[in-house]
Amino acid sequence: MFIKGIGRTKFGALNEEAPALLYSAILGAVRDARIGPDDIGACIVSNFIGAQLENRAHMNSLIPCLLPGFDKPCIRVESACASGGAALWTATKMLGEFDNILVVGVEKMSAAKSSAVTGALASAGDVESEQRQGVVFPAAYALMASEYFARYGRSPADLARVALKSHHNANLNPLAHFYHKTVRLQDIENSPVVCSPLRLLDCSPISDGAAALVLSRARAGPRDVRILSCEMATDVIALSQRPDLTSSRVSRTAAKRAFDAAGIGRDDVDLAQVHDCFTINELISLESMGFCEPGAAPQLDTSLGGPLPVNTDGGLKADGHPIGASGIAQLTKLVLQLRQEAGARQVRDARIGLAHNIGGSGGSAVVSILKGGPDV
Amino acid sequence: MFIKGIGRTKFGALNEEAPALLYSAILGAVRDARIGPDDIGACIVSNFIGAQLENRAHMNSLIPCLLPGFDKPCIRVESACASGGAALWTATKMLGEFDNILVVGVEKMSAAKSSAVTGALASAGDVESEQRQGVVFPAAYALMASEYFARYGRSPADLARVALKSHHNANLNPLAHFYHKTVRLQDIENSPVVCSPLRLLDCSPISDGAAALVLSRARAGPRDVRILSCEMATDVIALSQRPDLTSSRVSRTAAKRAFDAAGIGRDDVDLAQVHDCFTINELISLESMGFCEPGAAPQLDTSLGGPLPVNTDGGLKADGHPIGASGIAQLTKLVLQLRQEAGARQVRDARIGLAHNIGGSGGSAVVSILKGGPDV
Repeated sequence: MFIKGIGRTKFGALNEEAPALLYSAILGAVRDARIGPDDIGACIVSNFIGAQLENRAHMNSLIPCLLPGFDKPCIRVESACASGGAALWTATKMLGEFDNILVVGVEKMSAAKSSAVTGALASAGDVESEQRQGVVFPAAYALMASEYFARYGRSPADLARVALKSHHNANLNPLAHFYHKTVRLQDIENSPVVCSPLRLLDCSPISDGAAALVLSRARAGPRDVRILSCEMATDVIALSQRPDLTSSRVSRTAAKRAFDAAGIGRDDVDLAQVHDCFTINELISLESMGFCEPGAAPQLDTSLGGPLPVNTDGGLKADGHPIGASGIAQLTKLVLQLRQEAGARQVRDARIGLAHNIGGSGGSAVVSILKGGPDV
Repeated sequence: MFIKGIGRTKFGALNEEAPALLYSAILGAVRDARIGPDDIGACIVSNFIGAQLENRAHMNSLIPCLLPGFDKPCIRVESACASGGAALWTATKMLGEFDNILVVGVEKMSAAKSSAVTGALASAGDVESEQRQGVVFPAAYALMASEYFARYGRSPADLARVALKSHHNANLNPLAHFYHKTVRLQDIENSPVVCSPLRLLDCSPISDGAAALVLSRARAGPRDVRILSCEMATDVIALSQRPDLTSSRVSRTAAKRAFDAAGIGRDDVDLAQVHDCFTINELISLESMGFCEPGAAPQLDTSLGGPLPVNTDGGLKADGHPIGASGIAQLTKLVLQLRQEAGARQVRDARIGLAHNIGGSGGSAVVSILKGGPDV
């Protein structure tokens, strides 16, 4: 399995509505893959909260409007913030049946009131024990951060360094939500408290955007990147049913499956896109996926020049988090790196990249491992 | 590919919430298949408007709560009223990767205000040319009915006979929404006009319910039913972009693909479950799928004892239309018939059955053809 084409829009508060965003991303991916719409055997659309914010469901039926004459199978796949990863996973499991599958994700969030967005995002969580008790997502991740601090003797300063790195990387990514926004450590540490101990700059923003991939069964050329593995896991969604808030069982399971299927180890990974909806989650996820011992992630050097660059384009935190697109955009970022086309944020000699995408507070997760280069 | 187990709840205005409905249907299917949760390789959840009505997205993450210890891949698939068919289609395309896939659909509609339900249902239609103009679904299908009457010289009496047959069949189905509700022709013809020419009893009801299937790669026993084909098509969603309102292009395309893949003809079909969200759609769909000439469906004998029994359990019209479940329940009905276990509504010697599930006013459609019997 290969990724033959990638496309994405800028992320941010954009003027375009969902159909225009989808169109831009699809056009980019199809052109990059050097195929036409007739070569696409099926299309999988990822979107999370278009139904609540814009009363747009059935978003798969937009594809025949955008690609005149297209009548191939299209479905919408949703798994909260892991919708993009779940769409990718679905495509990889179907690729035995099709030569090429188009996977495209979109979210249009900035036009809605922020209270409506917060309410819609909460739909990823448990209805009874979370939504009805007011446990919105910043609160869920704040609970994890508090537990993590207490168990491992960590502090908000450890989170601030994650945010600082992401904003630094986003400043090298012209498509990022926070491109050209200078953020210093004191800006992060003085930003308003959203839900203690999480501050505003620990949180990913409300972004619009779309991203697309063309997946192909066969390799057509040296720019095609191989999917070594793409694996999904699920877990109970209610935090109250989990044995431990300082690690992510669903990430551990998905990563184990992905590394086993790829037949490589953690040390083989040259860079990773990790689901940092909140800064604490980058740390917990790296640990749960086995990149270091529990509690040790703050000591990892995850900068662009370090041994394991993480969230090279700014992550969800600073590149932006248009939810249905986020898990797919992670792959577009890996592909650019593995093609050695990532410009100022290129990781030297990047050959193997990992993407990690979580739904809700850890009810679902997808881990994908890609390999680029002439001999894949 | 085989269907090894089926389960469903009663359809109607029920007390249970979505998780309980899911659980009942899953338990039925898993027991019927004589497998345990550990034998399930992946799960596909179909749901349409839980996000809008109950702020329940990420419904796939309910599965690990319902099946303790389950951590396999689960996704939610949505394609408006074809969500169930789309989930089934997805599973069939993935079945090369898994021994067994659980497909389960659910919808909880009766607890919401009817205006909220109408608004949420409209999310299947085009935002710009339909939702913003007030073209809710009864209006869209009323436009089709008006055009159909004008072109073929038909009248409301032709629709009333469709409803009468469905209510008759539902009275033989203890799980139907309208079981034990006697409906006479004059009740239909005197029911309130919803959107002219459609009356209340031309419309499917607002139902709660769930239905589940266990799909398996291998056949385990004589009760297993073979999936000869399951094919999907898409079309532009806006009615204003369609060349003709009196036929369904998406049904024609999906049916052609399904018959081609199954290698059988229309005459080989012993019974059909056709997407009758409104009575007019049963007629248009039968014609578009090639069971008769355009305009001739009112002359077909689709009763239980006739040459082509249609909607043997009452259809969406009288069995009920809990949307995410409907397309999956169509298959449970076919399986019962092909096992010769359908009781009072059994079609004699039923061997080949067809299910047809449409999204919105025809933006997506799935047609499945099943074969039962000892030698499949």
